[in-house]
Amino acid sequence: MKKLSLLICAAISVNGIVFAQEAIHPDIPDIASPVIGKDGSVTFSLFAPKAENVMLTGNVLRELKDTLPDGTVKNIDYLKMNNNEGLWTLTLNGLTPDFYSYKFLVDGVETLDPLNSYVLRDVRSISSTFLLPGLESELFIPANVPHGSLSEVWYNSKSDGLDRRLSIYTPPAYDDMDRAYPVLYLLHGMGGDETAWVDQGKAVQILDNMIARGLIEPMIVVMPNGNIARQAAPGYDSFALEQPQFNLPHTIDGLFEELFPEIVDFIDNNYRTKPDRKSRAIAGLSMGGLHSLYISANYPEKFGYVGLFSAATDPIRHNPEGLPRFYEDRSNKMKKFFDSSAPVYFIAIGKDDFLYDVNTQYRKELDSLNLPYIYEESNGGHEWSNWRQYLIKFLPMLFKE
Amino acid sequence: MKKLSLLICAAISVNGIVFAQEAIHPDIPDIASPVIGKDGSVTFSLFAPKAENVMLTGNVLRELKDTLPDGTVKNIDYLKMNNNEGLWTLTLNGLTPDFYSYKFLVDGVETLDPLNSYVLRDVRSISSTFLLPGLESELFIPANVPHGSLSEVWYNSKSDGLDRRLSIYTPPAYDDMDRAYPVLYLLHGMGGDETAWVDQGKAVQILDNMIARGLIEPMIVVMPNGNIARQAAPGYDSFALEQPQFNLPHTIDGLFEELFPEIVDFIDNNYRTKPDRKSRAIAGLSMGGLHSLYISANYPEKFGYVGLFSAATDPIRHNPEGLPRFYEDRSNKMKKFFDSSAPVYFIAIGKDDFLYDVNTQYRKELDSLNLPYIYEESNGGHEWSNWRQYLIKFLPMLFKE
Repeated sequence: MKKLSLLICAAISVNGIVFAQEAIHPDIPDIASPVIGKDGSVTFSLFAPKAENVMLTGNVLRELKDTLPDGTVKNIDYLKMNNNEGLWTLTLNGLTPDFYSYKFLVDGVETLDPLNSYVLRDVRSISSTFLLPGLESELFIPANVPHGSLSEVWYNSKSDGLDRRLSIYTPPAYDDMDRAYPVLYLLHGMGGDETAWVDQGKAVQILDNMIARGLIEPMIVVMPNGNIARQAAPGYDSFALEQPQFNLPHTIDGLFEELFPEIVDFIDNNYRTKPDRKSRAIAGLSMGGLHSLYISANYPEKFGYVGLFSAATDPIRHNPEGLPRFYEDRSNKMKKFFDSSAPVYFIAIGKDDFLYDVNTQYRKELDSLNLPYIYEESNGGHEWSNWRQYLIKFLPMLFKE
Repeated sequence: MKKLSLLICAAISVNGIVFAQEAIHPDIPDIASPVIGKDGSVTFSLFAPKAENVMLTGNVLRELKDTLPDGTVKNIDYLKMNNNEGLWTLTLNGLTPDFYSYKFLVDGVETLDPLNSYVLRDVRSISSTFLLPGLESELFIPANVPHGSLSEVWYNSKSDGLDRRLSIYTPPAYDDMDRAYPVLYLLHGMGGDETAWVDQGKAVQILDNMIARGLIEPMIVVMPNGNIARQAAPGYDSFALEQPQFNLPHTIDGLFEELFPEIVDFIDNNYRTKPDRKSRAIAGLSMGGLHSLYISANYPEKFGYVGLFSAATDPIRHNPEGLPRFYEDRSNKMKKFFDSSAPVYFIAIGKDDFLYDVNTQYRKELDSLNLPYIYEESNGGHEWSNWRQYLIKFLPMLFKE
């Protein structure tokens, strides 16, 4: 095995400048990780000569199942790696092409892959990531096509006078052409923020690639921060520099939804939009699906297209002491919305999603009201792997009139 | 010690949704890391009950020195942490308020802090980070002040027809007011890219805060990718999805510098700029300092302000086989530049910088030509800690006429 002193890696790592470093490391093998083979295999490697047990974890294992003696099928959440003189490796075959995250558990200590610079934060958890190329992931991968711009922009919220941050995608040639564009409002889930659809959802690459292929209309995409208790994603909020939190106050109480028109006004006042419901869509995942449901139902004149991706369609669960006003009288609001706007209404969920049953219930409600929707049922559960694909399915439905 | 099963952390981490997880972890203590005390102390903690040796490394140690028996003073690059029943901790006192990075070395394995979601990539290396608040760092910290926008924007390069990505800061109220702004072009060092001044340089927060305090003129700041062999930062380049590289081709051969006017033209054509040298500045660190030096010297009509932060002023080192045409005849070009533009010329370097001597030599060259410059000599070496402070010193010099 070719050996390379860690000296070189350490030296390069400090501000890009070669410094002398104390040679306290053992020699480490000259390895790369992860390595994607031509056959689509992915090999993970970690040099940990003193470790007794190294395991791989992350959504790279999501297709692995274990059948227990009693017949129960269980997910496999950890896989032991193979040890060869301190070099721990594991090869996974047959992964669906996708954007994956993983980490190592080294004698119980969560460890990112030190050989992989690509890192993702998901709420409080950090992971190493990679893109496995192939048919299912080709729209996530940066291509040499015309690119839109991505901007982090602040608007002022009238509710409390605070500035809040939005991520805004403007399509290629937005600055060159004096035309107006339709707008998709794209909302994150609980624990997410205005960076979620960019970093995990690959929204920018999906938009660039689908526009370049002529699959969708060029559009503006606005990704707000749905946490009304926050100004911006962790690290950008002037009142909250602590670690990210999963369950922030006021996420599912109707306040964000009620105030939503001020975001729409900000966008219509500052971007070249087509400011009407035929040119305005709203979609979101999980909590963002709930937000999309109630924003569109309460402001029926605003949106002509709605996408509910694994939506939390049952706000009662989150408000056991009583349904907030903004969530009341749903059926009547939905009837008015469909009567006046005849929206394209898209509902998507995975068979294994823990919200599958409440989505079925919600569809029954729509059925009983004779309100038409497009329904997509996928494999898998409550995961980005599905939400990226739902976005890819939803986008071509938009702004066709 | 209060115990909390890792179950909860792991459960929250998967797409923000609570899943059942196999309970294979030992109980881990309910700890936070890093913890910043009221006295400015910083305590790092890692639960690694099976580890024999856990060390702390990173620029948190940069002020620690060791004197060897022969009198040599050495940097301390690793500090052993204290083990208490598997909980490894270390407290550092007296750190200068700054933006810091660190990681753990657990029996030789580089490990990011699993309790800290804030991660930074520097070339190929990933680290955990934190902001230590205080006088020296207060301009890096997000404040509740009017915010500028940060955009990732693509321009087309005439040299090879490729689109390349720029980070562009527009000041608060840029979209509200019909006025024109001056522009600072801010360049990264070797191994960096268009994200470096944003992620490591804290340029957005520094600009927001200094504009809000009335310390500097509102300005547009353009941060290009100085790697002419690349389109964009790792992960966004359609031809290079591999791991980041430190030493890319064509970084110090004059090509990026020669083509620079196409970036200036793109900005002047697409933003409300004041398109003259009295309203245009260029500055960069290390390789970006070299770029700034030669762009301003070769296009003397373009820039009225130049900042060289720890600049690589000696392109011969990087071109041992002969100086590229664009780097030739420096003294004459500099004379013409100073004669025609009378620029504000700012040179800054740390006493311990490995480029200190070549900077001294360059200043002698300017002295011998009677060309005036402002010189700032700081402590420390070739590091972001200095570059952020140099930017803070340089910005108030700009666009005062």
